[in-house]
Amino acid sequence: MREVAVLGVGMTRFGELWDRSFREIGIEAGFQALVDAKLSSGDLGALYLGNMASGSLIAQEHIAPLILDYSGLGSHHLSAVRVEGGGASGALAFHQGYLAVASGAHDFVVVGGAEKLTDVPDVDGMRISNGAADQEWEVVFGATLPGLWGMVARRHMHEFGTTREQFARVAVHDHEMGSKNPNAHYRNRISLEAVVNATPVAEPLGMLDCAPLSDGAAAVVLGPLERARKFTDTPIRVAASQVACDSMALQHRRELTTMDATVVAAKRAFGQARRTAADVQVVELDDAYTVSALVSLEDLGFVPKGESGPTFATGAFGPGGKTVMNTSGGLKAQGRPFGAVGVAQIVEIVRQLRGEAGDRQVPGATLGLAHVLGGTGATSVVHLLERAT
Amino acid sequence: MREVAVLGVGMTRFGELWDRSFREIGIEAGFQALVDAKLSSGDLGALYLGNMASGSLIAQEHIAPLILDYSGLGSHHLSAVRVEGGGASGALAFHQGYLAVASGAHDFVVVGGAEKLTDVPDVDGMRISNGAADQEWEVVFGATLPGLWGMVARRHMHEFGTTREQFARVAVHDHEMGSKNPNAHYRNRISLEAVVNATPVAEPLGMLDCAPLSDGAAAVVLGPLERARKFTDTPIRVAASQVACDSMALQHRRELTTMDATVVAAKRAFGQARRTAADVQVVELDDAYTVSALVSLEDLGFVPKGESGPTFATGAFGPGGKTVMNTSGGLKAQGRPFGAVGVAQIVEIVRQLRGEAGDRQVPGATLGLAHVLGGTGATSVVHLLERAT
Repeated sequence: MREVAVLGVGMTRFGELWDRSFREIGIEAGFQALVDAKLSSGDLGALYLGNMASGSLIAQEHIAPLILDYSGLGSHHLSAVRVEGGGASGALAFHQGYLAVASGAHDFVVVGGAEKLTDVPDVDGMRISNGAADQEWEVVFGATLPGLWGMVARRHMHEFGTTREQFARVAVHDHEMGSKNPNAHYRNRISLEAVVNATPVAEPLGMLDCAPLSDGAAAVVLGPLERARKFTDTPIRVAASQVACDSMALQHRRELTTMDATVVAAKRAFGQARRTAADVQVVELDDAYTVSALVSLEDLGFVPKGESGPTFATGAFGPGGKTVMNTSGGLKAQGRPFGAVGVAQIVEIVRQLRGEAGDRQVPGATLGLAHVLGGTGATSVVHLLERAT
Repeated sequence: MREVAVLGVGMTRFGELWDRSFREIGIEAGFQALVDAKLSSGDLGALYLGNMASGSLIAQEHIAPLILDYSGLGSHHLSAVRVEGGGASGALAFHQGYLAVASGAHDFVVVGGAEKLTDVPDVDGMRISNGAADQEWEVVFGATLPGLWGMVARRHMHEFGTTREQFARVAVHDHEMGSKNPNAHYRNRISLEAVVNATPVAEPLGMLDCAPLSDGAAAVVLGPLERARKFTDTPIRVAASQVACDSMALQHRRELTTMDATVVAAKRAFGQARRTAADVQVVELDDAYTVSALVSLEDLGFVPKGESGPTFATGAFGPGGKTVMNTSGGLKAQGRPFGAVGVAQIVEIVRQLRGEAGDRQVPGATLGLAHVLGGTGATSVVHLLERAT
């Protein structure tokens, strides 16, 4: 396979963008990425678009050619493909874009992720969100995604002694990071007390343990590494791109507190890149719920199983730490437009590796990891990105 | 890129399968394909699943790991990715599976397509179908997919003198072919009079010019051609896999009677395979509406623009013709479970090239073409399959 590099990145602000349609945000992110890559539309071969639920949300399927069309790229008759895997949709689109360039089928591709979750008609956010869980074996019995993650949290407390406050610290951290990110949905800092005392959603998780529903889009341009220097002084190499899946329903897993899909995807990714978790300076991981962040830190190998709560509470993953987590603010503070999340993570990692992350820059970062889950971990996607030397 | 071969195929019966759920039909097709390929689940690296609208239809997104899970493959933590592009979803999934093997990322992958369109709660089939058109510029103004194709038909009549009866002959042909296909939704023959006199849907198109809503699933196993002989005496080489897109809304096209996406995809595919339309003995093409079949025969290069009506009426694409069209019965008679269609076309072409098509076998077929559209042609996918010598 050819080596693949990220040549350009772009994203919209995440948040409640009531004045902007799905197609508008998709196009804005794509244009930004193209301009950043110094490419013109005629150079492109394909568009991969991550989106979870446009069919239910805006009655629109078949959205890859739609975004292609309204971005003015339609006239080139590019290939345009939508990819869906719940909250992992954007990361899966990136994986497909990676394969398209690695295979030699295309030289330059755009990968986009977009979701319009607010200000849409007749939509029940919980129903949409539950579409990533198992309808027949979970949802019809009353389970919801927050409810399922609440069970994971309870079990983690039972098995490892993790405390309510330790979960809450993830949200405090994310909002601190989000306060430095001009694109973040939430830029306010929050206190540990506020998180612990927030309205319960699915105990022990409260309102501030759960990422919001956001509108937003993100995009990146990929191309062959060997040609990357023509376009940028700081090409970012895709060192690994791996997907692993698991049982759809949480109850069918080997255990509740380990997401095997993440363990396997991470193992494959570190194998592909010939690196280990200890080499990673910046990680964007799935904090859709505070508990998913702690579990993912363990599953990715950043802390031993069961130790994430107390370790995180020491500030080990904050600024100055060996590995800094969710400098973007993560899903919790940067926001959670399902299909855009996995691409926005790549945007943040690329900006960190280029040294363009402003107030939230991790000095000298050379290797970054992006991780996102679909549902309660039936899909897990891990990407490793490295500053090409 | 590595050469890729189809090693196994499988499909369920298409029709109104009220006693069978989405996951059941997906699994049946996948198992058939695995058994046909003489592979076991441990050999597989990835699943690509084509599906258009499970979110709207059964409130279930994130369906690739779901099918993986219930087929017993979940325990291997394969990569599983859903691909969506309206009625072209299955063909796009095949394209992604092809790239996954061609790139070397995976050796063996399953490509599935599945849709459950009947016997689902609270679903308006027209609303789902319209999800493949442009909601903001077509559907909100009252356009429907049959309505849009009706306009294409009217324009074709106006420009080229095509007659109502010439469109109807496509449906008669498809049902004749479907009568020989045990998996077909409709196995009854129909007369020209019946088609012409059927209830109008969007004039000139009547009820029998429009493919039905069906349940069904299809699957194929892909692997490297160089290893194919270990598994089968008749490996089928993927000679080309190409996708092209165009404006989402019909009104924004260069003209109404040519689907540029098909013209471009076909040109790319014949270029990749170094063959021409004249080399093709069997073609499965998009006959979601009788007019789409005639337009596609022209756009793919089987007849000059404007001549499809009279040429088809001579029986040129029936048994004994140089190129035989839709031996499966096509979308019209075999059925139209959106996401499954593109994969079922591959299944039929493979059976023809292997000489396993029973009563509908085209003697000595060595090169086949599969073509399917999303919406009114915003996506077009063309595959060429060849019996490896």
